[in-house]
Amino acid sequence: MALNSWNTQLARAEKVFSSYTEAEFYLPVAPGKNRILYLYGHLATVHDALKETLGLAKRTRPELAVLFLQNADNPAAEFPAYADLKEYWNNVHDELKVLFTNLPAEEWFKRHNAMTDEDFEKDPSRNRLSVLLNRANHVAYHLGQVILLKPGE
Amino acid sequence: MALNSWNTQLARAEKVFSSYTEAEFYLPVAPGKNRILYLYGHLATVHDALKETLGLAKRTRPELAVLFLQNADNPAAEFPAYADLKEYWNNVHDELKVLFTNLPAEEWFKRHNAMTDEDFEKDPSRNRLSVLLNRANHVAYHLGQVILLKPGE
Repeated sequence: MALNSWNTQLARAEKVFSSYTEAEFYLPVAPGKNRILYLYGHLATVHDALKETLGLAKRTRPELAVLFLQNADNPAAEFPAYADLKEYWNNVHDELKVLFTNLPAEEWFKRHNAMTDEDFEKDPSRNRLSVLLNRANHVAYHLGQVILLKPGE
Repeated sequence: MALNSWNTQLARAEKVFSSYTEAEFYLPVAPGKNRILYLYGHLATVHDALKETLGLAKRTRPELAVLFLQNADNPAAEFPAYADLKEYWNNVHDELKVLFTNLPAEEWFKRHNAMTDEDFEKDPSRNRLSVLLNRANHVAYHLGQVILLKPGE
């Protein structure tokens, strides 16, 4: 069910992002706000790091954290090219798909790497599934912004 | 865990909405987009209807569906007053809190009212919990918009 929630949000994200042209990727979602390209890179980078948080694999491009995690969008930022980011997005999500498909159900209820054994003992609901639910909400959050460039939304 | 996800999103929503003044409630989240007041009423109305979808209680104010569910924000819309909507929001969420607390765990895995027994047999993951996860994502989606009035977000 949590996987359903994640898959649904991700499918929506891919649909919305792919509805924009390359030129539109360089438009902010509202005046003075993040550009679509930034939010696209941000989500890809967060999901790249998700592999590590879940303890399933290493990040593919840790160097992108400075651009897309530690800093907000800004005019001076030198982003990877659109095509490069698209490839990154696809690779990250293809890899996650395989990792999630192969993860035995009981593994989802184990603790993630961002917390200690001691904290986990106190609150066993803070497991891999809860991280996934959190990330699904995070996708929805930014999707609500990305959609604003559509007329009538 | 799904309840955690819902509670987290709702707590965030209450924090963000309550950070805006009454005057700010009448500002759109971006030029030509929904006003905060509309999104606030929209979420309250969706959650009022959630009681019915989950088969737990009747909607309190079904007449608000025309304003906040069936139509987008528009200058001609005659919304309830800010104080009235605040009261509605609080009542809806207080009621949900009680209903959720009193619902036995196994009841969460039963089907919701928006689907038939036959559909549920085909896909038992479409239960009350999956509706709740979907609504948590929906809150996050609009929260990503409401936050845009904050400088630097």
